[in-house]
Amino acid sequence: MSRPPLPEGPALLEVRHAVRRWVAAHGTGTGVAVALSGGADSLALTAAAVAEAGPAHALVVDHRLQEGSAAVAEQAAARALALGCASARVLTVSVDRDGGLEAAARRTRYEALGAARADRPVLLGHTLDDQAETVLLGLARGSGPRSLAGMRDFDAPWGRPLLTVRRGVTAKACEELELDPYRDPHNLSPEFTRVRLRSEALPLLEQILGGGVAQALARTADQLREDGEVLDAIAVRVLADAGSGGVDTADAVGGLDVAELVDIHPAVRRRALRLWLLGNGARDLTDRQLRAADDLIGRWRGQGGVAIGGGRPGARLVLSRRHGRLTLGLTAIGPDR
Amino acid sequence: MSRPPLPEGPALLEVRHAVRRWVAAHGTGTGVAVALSGGADSLALTAAAVAEAGPAHALVVDHRLQEGSAAVAEQAAARALALGCASARVLTVSVDRDGGLEAAARRTRYEALGAARADRPVLLGHTLDDQAETVLLGLARGSGPRSLAGMRDFDAPWGRPLLTVRRGVTAKACEELELDPYRDPHNLSPEFTRVRLRSEALPLLEQILGGGVAQALARTADQLREDGEVLDAIAVRVLADAGSGGVDTADAVGGLDVAELVDIHPAVRRRALRLWLLGNGARDLTDRQLRAADDLIGRWRGQGGVAIGGGRPGARLVLSRRHGRLTLGLTAIGPDR
Repeated sequence: MSRPPLPEGPALLEVRHAVRRWVAAHGTGTGVAVALSGGADSLALTAAAVAEAGPAHALVVDHRLQEGSAAVAEQAAARALALGCASARVLTVSVDRDGGLEAAARRTRYEALGAARADRPVLLGHTLDDQAETVLLGLARGSGPRSLAGMRDFDAPWGRPLLTVRRGVTAKACEELELDPYRDPHNLSPEFTRVRLRSEALPLLEQILGGGVAQALARTADQLREDGEVLDAIAVRVLADAGSGGVDTADAVGGLDVAELVDIHPAVRRRALRLWLLGNGARDLTDRQLRAADDLIGRWRGQGGVAIGGGRPGARLVLSRRHGRLTLGLTAIGPDR
Repeated sequence: MSRPPLPEGPALLEVRHAVRRWVAAHGTGTGVAVALSGGADSLALTAAAVAEAGPAHALVVDHRLQEGSAAVAEQAAARALALGCASARVLTVSVDRDGGLEAAARRTRYEALGAARADRPVLLGHTLDDQAETVLLGLARGSGPRSLAGMRDFDAPWGRPLLTVRRGVTAKACEELELDPYRDPHNLSPEFTRVRLRSEALPLLEQILGGGVAQALARTADQLREDGEVLDAIAVRVLADAGSGGVDTADAVGGLDVAELVDIHPAVRRRALRLWLLGNGARDLTDRQLRAADDLIGRWRGQGGVAIGGGRPGARLVLSRRHGRLTLGLTAIGPDR
């Protein structure tokens, strides 16, 4: 593919360096897909991926949530080809607004990218600033160490090479490329929680604490992620011990031996329960549900079953303790048939 | 001691309930000391402690940092006796301003309380809001899971029964007691980081996220503390394995066997190193030092020793790897003698 060589500005070099490190750590035998919105982060990422991780295939999602979104997507795809991408596709989607617009748009976007990636890893343009916002959001919502741990740089098939790069650097890299990135009006809309964290809360924290907050949040995420890896590995071993000899009956999937769990620290036990429940069809587990589930082990006083998100239409999942085992079964909802 | 019975308002009952739970969990064979500033939190705590954890002995620290502080302290002590405390003492201290006024005042206060507690646990009036501020401060400074985990409800001899109680409840309890609590002007002074977190950052986060932030921060602290307990317990075991057969030489205290550590997850290894270093005289360990120390195990390429805070005048602590062991030794600073 003939194209002019990339300029050698310091910001673009920093982005390229981050992509190079990512490739060295995670490899890209078949090249990469790059999720391109046309914004500064993904535009800089695309340019760097062409140079460091190629062949690079751009995937542009048109959410059709704004007037003119098709033209924005087409322009982004054209820029991807001009930057040297091996291909560029626009994926046009329909966002179902169930569960809030932000969440629905994200879910739809990831589905489309996952379907179009053709077995390649998908590079995403999340920066250190996005990581900081994610951590702060997780913290302020109390959703636990797992969400505090933020985004991983590789969570197959999703790759995030720019988690060490500041947002200002990607903007600068676009200047060096003489590209005027698309500015998503959603990124300025104060109705979005994340936008307000970014534009109001983080600057205030930076001011109060004398700077360094975004880096500190990202560093905290790294540490919590490592701690979480250790604890999850222990939980997997605990689960193997407690689940061996699990019984499958007509109304229950598998079973856990309470005796194997009762002396385990509750923090590990809840992780083990979480893994086991998710592996058996549970969804949208809350901390409250996990604690109630754990009480069947740690605070047993003959209580009834714990309703767990998931199941299927007309029946819900219920975790119960019987004869020293925890079993997860489907219970019909509504009037008896 | 004859005194009127406490009023039965809902706020004071909530504070009493929290103290009762604390006593049930941690016991107070010899009664308790209560650190009393005269502010709403510690005043409500003192009243509740008299009812639930007595005999209660009030300790009032006069930091002598403000005009009229002696009178404030005397008034607090008088109120403690009126509330039914078995004794009330004013501890007059001098704050050395090394390392920042906030930190110095805290250090001096804890020293004075520790010296005067007469083997009793010292109850402190920290509320859920203080916990939230502590977590946010730790997070924003990136000081790691340990500081994110916030304050423990019992960290002998320091007891914090009110970590589940909102600050508004202690204020209300003082109203029910018909006591006008002392308002420390430091608590309104925007030069203090914590004051600005309290008065600006947390309210903004509450507004952006639709409330519940303080509780969420406190809940996160609980989870991280439990995770930390598990990881620290593992680190202690790792240390026992690596430290057995440790050598003591003229210039080195103890030693750790690298072979026992190299296959351990770095997150656990850093915890083990931290415990070992602190147990051998290190002070003010930073995450950077711990990572450099860990690199002697996980990224060994023959590098030199790592300077560790601590040591003594004229000599600093240096961690080095020699013959497959980590040793911590004192190295003279300055020109050779």
